[in-house]
Amino acid sequence: SASYRRNMFLKKTLTMDTLNPQVKAVEYAVRGPIVIKAGEIEKYLEEGGTKPFSEVIKANIGDAHAMGQQPITFLRQVVALCTFPELMDSPSFPEDAKWRARRILQGCGGHSLGSYSASPGVECIRKDIAAYIEQRDEGVPSDWENIYLTTGASDGIMTILRLLVSGKDSSRTGVMIPIPQYPLYSAAISEMDAVQVNYYLDEDNCWALDINELYRAYQAAKLHCQPKVICIINPGNPTGQVQSKKCIEEVLHFAYEENLFVMSDEVYQDNVYTPDCQFHSFKKVLYEMGPEYFNSVELASFHSTSKGYTGECGFRGGYMEVINMDPEVKAQLVKLLSVRLCPPLAGQAAMDVIVNPPQPDEHSYKQFHQEKSSVLGALADKAKLTEQILNAVPGIKCNPVQGAMYAFPRIFIPPKAVEEAKALGMQPDMFYCLRLLEETGICVVPGSGFGQKDGTYHFRMTILPSIEKLKVLLGKVRDFHISFLKEYSALE
Amino acid sequence: SASYRRNMFLKKTLTMDTLNPQVKAVEYAVRGPIVIKAGEIEKYLEEGGTKPFSEVIKANIGDAHAMGQQPITFLRQVVALCTFPELMDSPSFPEDAKWRARRILQGCGGHSLGSYSASPGVECIRKDIAAYIEQRDEGVPSDWENIYLTTGASDGIMTILRLLVSGKDSSRTGVMIPIPQYPLYSAAISEMDAVQVNYYLDEDNCWALDINELYRAYQAAKLHCQPKVICIINPGNPTGQVQSKKCIEEVLHFAYEENLFVMSDEVYQDNVYTPDCQFHSFKKVLYEMGPEYFNSVELASFHSTSKGYTGECGFRGGYMEVINMDPEVKAQLVKLLSVRLCPPLAGQAAMDVIVNPPQPDEHSYKQFHQEKSSVLGALADKAKLTEQILNAVPGIKCNPVQGAMYAFPRIFIPPKAVEEAKALGMQPDMFYCLRLLEETGICVVPGSGFGQKDGTYHFRMTILPSIEKLKVLLGKVRDFHISFLKEYSALE
Repeated sequence: SASYRRNMFLKKTLTMDTLNPQVKAVEYAVRGPIVIKAGEIEKYLEEGGTKPFSEVIKANIGDAHAMGQQPITFLRQVVALCTFPELMDSPSFPEDAKWRARRILQGCGGHSLGSYSASPGVECIRKDIAAYIEQRDEGVPSDWENIYLTTGASDGIMTILRLLVSGKDSSRTGVMIPIPQYPLYSAAISEMDAVQVNYYLDEDNCWALDINELYRAYQAAKLHCQPKVICIINPGNPTGQVQSKKCIEEVLHFAYEENLFVMSDEVYQDNVYTPDCQFHSFKKVLYEMGPEYFNSVELASFHSTSKGYTGECGFRGGYMEVINMDPEVKAQLVKLLSVRLCPPLAGQAAMDVIVNPPQPDEHSYKQFHQEKSSVLGALADKAKLTEQILNAVPGIKCNPVQGAMYAFPRIFIPPKAVEEAKALGMQPDMFYCLRLLEETGICVVPGSGFGQKDGTYHFRMTILPSIEKLKVLLGKVRDFHISFLKEYSALE
Repeated sequence: SASYRRNMFLKKTLTMDTLNPQVKAVEYAVRGPIVIKAGEIEKYLEEGGTKPFSEVIKANIGDAHAMGQQPITFLRQVVALCTFPELMDSPSFPEDAKWRARRILQGCGGHSLGSYSASPGVECIRKDIAAYIEQRDEGVPSDWENIYLTTGASDGIMTILRLLVSGKDSSRTGVMIPIPQYPLYSAAISEMDAVQVNYYLDEDNCWALDINELYRAYQAAKLHCQPKVICIINPGNPTGQVQSKKCIEEVLHFAYEENLFVMSDEVYQDNVYTPDCQFHSFKKVLYEMGPEYFNSVELASFHSTSKGYTGECGFRGGYMEVINMDPEVKAQLVKLLSVRLCPPLAGQAAMDVIVNPPQPDEHSYKQFHQEKSSVLGALADKAKLTEQILNAVPGIKCNPVQGAMYAFPRIFIPPKAVEEAKALGMQPDMFYCLRLLEETGICVVPGSGFGQKDGTYHFRMTILPSIEKLKVLLGKVRDFHISFLKEYSALE
């Protein structure tokens, strides 16, 4: 009987043995074991448990609002007006927010945020994005039909990789990524069963991208796979460097020569803090290299509502601009996007505000500008402070945080601690970060989750806590690190 | 030189030849060629072009607000309050909306909708969903830790399939789906390179699911693949049937016997129109079959903000409940979800309102209830009307629209028209629908996009247009069909 058969072979359909092995291979450190542990400690404290600290400080993820950053008023006004259009009659909402909301709603089916948009996004928002890009890039043309709204940048990155990574012979498609990298890339590569081709950023040179290292990685990879795409994160995550124009030129020349698709993750384009650094978009640099390059290199660049000065992660807004894509492939891209119907409309509306902010002659300009400057100014201060305090700790070395939202300091872990970690079957920096969490309540992510040169150890921390909390955090890191070194007898 | 090499082999990196063939294989009729054509005609009319009609009526997609359905006020109030919490001070928002918004925000990092939530969703919303399911299923227990918020139901369905469909030997994983089906399923199967195992619904019996057909399909599939999962859509899309309790029992018994994972797509659970039909959740039926079943069959069921009486497609809200999943696999599921960070927060908030609507003692109850009844009452009227008018046309036969939002009438296409279509390299029902579009401006989707028995032809139309517009639409379909039959000499 069925019940007899069932009992004989009592086994689930979906087990660790039958699970898609590519899912098993995925790692995502930013929300990995250490973050799960942090959540458990938080619960334990809430329930009255005691620890040597009263609070867990989560510096593991670029989640600005969770760390107390306030939303930009104008952005929220526009989204609220779109959500509940009866507010159009309310005198407490400014006209400049109202006309933006009206315009967005006119682009929506039934004038409602509840309709599906076209799969690439609401047409007027795509046009606003193209206009923004043209202005940002000082006149380099942008065609709105090359703009695709996305569900955060991650969604766009996964979609483009999905086109490039062939199923059947996927184990032969090479995807070049920086090391250290944001682990979305390695996770997507695992999920799609592509070959991860590492190129190492130069820690001794402020995490700059070294073109010789690109060639080395490419040549080595060609022996066992077909590298088809190069991913760049600029400003860097987790490394915080801002790429020079010269370096971008070199990367683009390399991609042109070797016929690689270029994916440039530019979600931190508004997060540049060091006065002698400037954000250069890959597209603008490509344009300036001349039509031979600008009309041929296939480039997808990504932006998001989650970072910058807005930090609207929860809206899952973003876009990608794709140039030089084969028109037939473009039709396939649209088809693939259409299966998931459309990105969330509130996120699309939020994206529209970012690319179409209040202008100097508009009512909301002053407040918007103050809020924006205040967020970016505070981030610049915290970037500097983080670098300074960390570099004053013996056994910690931190490159300048030129941009983005993270410090990625190198930490010296004494050989005895390395041994102890290995005996526990743990990466040494995981061991370090777990101890840091257990003893101080500070949650940072081990460098091994992002990749690093063998024998070097790092952690990633965000610079998002308030300046007061950040000082507490950095002080605790310093004290912990010194006592950790002492414990393992690396300081006399 | 590089430039020379480039010119010699002037070829893009990403072409139709190098594109991931699994992407190429994806089809998604709901936004397919006929819908693209409809968009072109719309543009043409806007620009002053003339056609035998003045307006394109899009009945191709379940996009309620685009067809004029009004949002539920209370839902939008709660989401607007979450988006712009300064509205908490506004006397024009009711207290019951405010306390819900406050409660949601308390579950968000920094009390902001702009924070990432935990990857499975905001905890209090997961709890509200579990409470809703328990109430819906008359006491059958629901554990909030089995609830995962999703980006629309599609996202959840893709995620569960991703776990089940193994990469390397994916060509061996069988996924059983109904025919006709909602093409998300076939698209996902193509993208993941699984084997589509068709079981045919019984058109002569109101599209009921016939258990013997399930066994037939399963046995046939076992000869060339390993069927691991069965998908059911109830109420049916595109077919509109509501499954009987007995039929659900049979499916669950079959899954239990053959050790299949069950995916039950229940996004139309609130859309039941025929008085003698009732929605039974797969989970409740499983419970009533006894602990032997309830504690073993692996079941994922899906819901959404996009359908029901809210029709909030643009919010991309949804959830899945997953029971009897192996705990280790569950950890893998959470890891996979975490790579995409979290579902959009506005969609999560919208989902919360659906599962936690105003109660009889609350201020907003009356208006909420009126709006809900009005939407569902109109849909029931339109379901009836559609069936009646279509069945009065010679050569069209339409099963009762018991639930969901679509009619899927069978259309007789005369042999001469079939020949003409084939000469054009076109499916006969595509030929029919294109003619319908060109001559009347009505956009419906050919049955071939959903699957149908060989030699039968259908189209799917939504019942979402207003009753006035629906009458116009149905009248035009009738006139077109009669003249189509005449043209191809099927009527004397």
